Amino acid sequence: MRNIKLTIEYDGTDFKGWQIQGKGERTVQAEITRALELILSERITLVGSGRTDSGVHALGQTANFHTQSTLNAERLQKALNANLPPDIAIINVEDVPDRFHAQNSAKYKTYRYTILNRDPRSALEYRRSLYYPFPLNVSAMKAAAKFIIGKHDFRTFQATDPRRKERDTVRAVTGLTIKKTGDLIHIDVTANGFLYKMVRNIVGTLLEVGGGRRAPSDIQKILHGKNRVLAGETAKPHALTLLCVEYDK
Amino acid sequence: MRNIKLTIEYDGTDFKGWQIQGKGERTVQAEITRALELILSERITLVGSGRTDSGVHALGQTANFHTQSTLNAERLQKALNANLPPDIAIINVEDVPDRFHAQNSAKYKTYRYTILNRDPRSALEYRRSLYYPFPLNVSAMKAAAKFIIGKHDFRTFQATDPRRKERDTVRAVTGLTIKKTGDLIHIDVTANGFLYKMVRNIVGTLLEVGGGRRAPSDIQKILHGKNRVLAGETAKPHALTLLCVEYDK
Repeated sequence: MRNIKLTIEYDGTDFKGWQIQGKGERTVQAEITRALELILSERITLVGSGRTDSGVHALGQTANFHTQSTLNAERLQKALNANLPPDIAIINVEDVPDRFHAQNSAKYKTYRYTILNRDPRSALEYRRSLYYPFPLNVSAMKAAAKFIIGKHDFRTFQATDPRRKERDTVRAVTGLTIKKTGDLIHIDVTANGFLYKMVRNIVGTLLEVGGGRRAPSDIQKILHGKNRVLAGETAKPHALTLLCVEYDK
Repeated sequence: MRNIKLTIEYDGTDFKGWQIQGKGERTVQAEITRALELILSERITLVGSGRTDSGVHALGQTANFHTQSTLNAERLQKALNANLPPDIAIINVEDVPDRFHAQNSAKYKTYRYTILNRDPRSALEYRRSLYYPFPLNVSAMKAAAKFIIGKHDFRTFQATDPRRKERDTVRAVTGLTIKKTGDLIHIDVTANGFLYKMVRNIVGTLLEVGGGRRAPSDIQKILHGKNRVLAGETAKPHALTLLCVEYDK
């Protein structure tokens, strides 16, 4: 059996997230599985690096599956892109060692959250950015971000969905950069793993700092309080993009 | 009567162009007229700077209308953005002299055509860029562009729709820049006016030069031949954006 890794770009607007749902909802995993089974004429189990929520986009989601097929990677990629809807594109297809597992082998993931900080709203950017018309103190947000970088118990930033609570809530955030370009603010977060809605809860809290409702140093108390009620609101999903998933060579 | 100028951004994907259609098709002009009449409680005639075709986007389309209303510009803008769908945004509202006419007073317009020059296609850029997976010689395209700049009879690049043929087909193209940034190629064209589908026909011809099917110097013959059959195919509309319309101060 070959083991094949896919790198996937998608516009999450019209998907109910990555994961196959019970009721035949439109999901990225379901669309790709359907296309693979059509092309390869065999049952395929597609393992993603992790779920993305409804509305979240990806530039570099990863997945793997095993197959009996001898179709080469380049042809498979072309066949997939010809059989997938325009809001999913397969960016790369490659053979990987048998032990490769898109979720368990992942070392780091990077997400980008995009804020459109202007008034009025935008008609061309609305699908991929949060419309935030109020002033934001980006320096304060950067100062707050410094407290988040590092290995911490991130329970404070874990969503309160009981079905998806992790026992081990310690993660290492290795990067958190905030960059303003024109009206757009990009918040890029890299970690060895993310709790459920962790990025969106961090962004919601950073927005409270940027808006002057909390001081940058409050982030320390919020983080060490280990309680979801201390953090800010969950920022909306449509402005979040999974940029890349990194693996050992 | 006040005369009010609007600056408008829209994502053309789900519109049948700017112009109100007979059959109640979804158009930008129809949506804005509906919102204005709702807010102002009077009949409004909205004059655009010009039509944009089905699928074409705008960052800075302009329009004007006369009204009896005393609602100030800022409040009108907020009311419009609250009453328009997410794929239309009103970027600016201002009072202008009575003689201002969005179409007749326009001095220059700038359009941008965006090409995604990579293989595979993109799931996040597909609504606004032309997927062109073959090699393009951007230097040759730039050399060809030089022949288009200036005051010429652009009949060669006018679409053959008999309903929209202009008698005077002389226009002054004051700028034509081609810039490659990563996988994206932006072609920006500024002129004192455009014939029907002129930008898309110029782009289609430049793509033939970029692909090596014509020499840059062929553009001279094509232009001076004054015959649509000499030029390249009309490039698809969804990659075209009206950037701005300029007026005398």
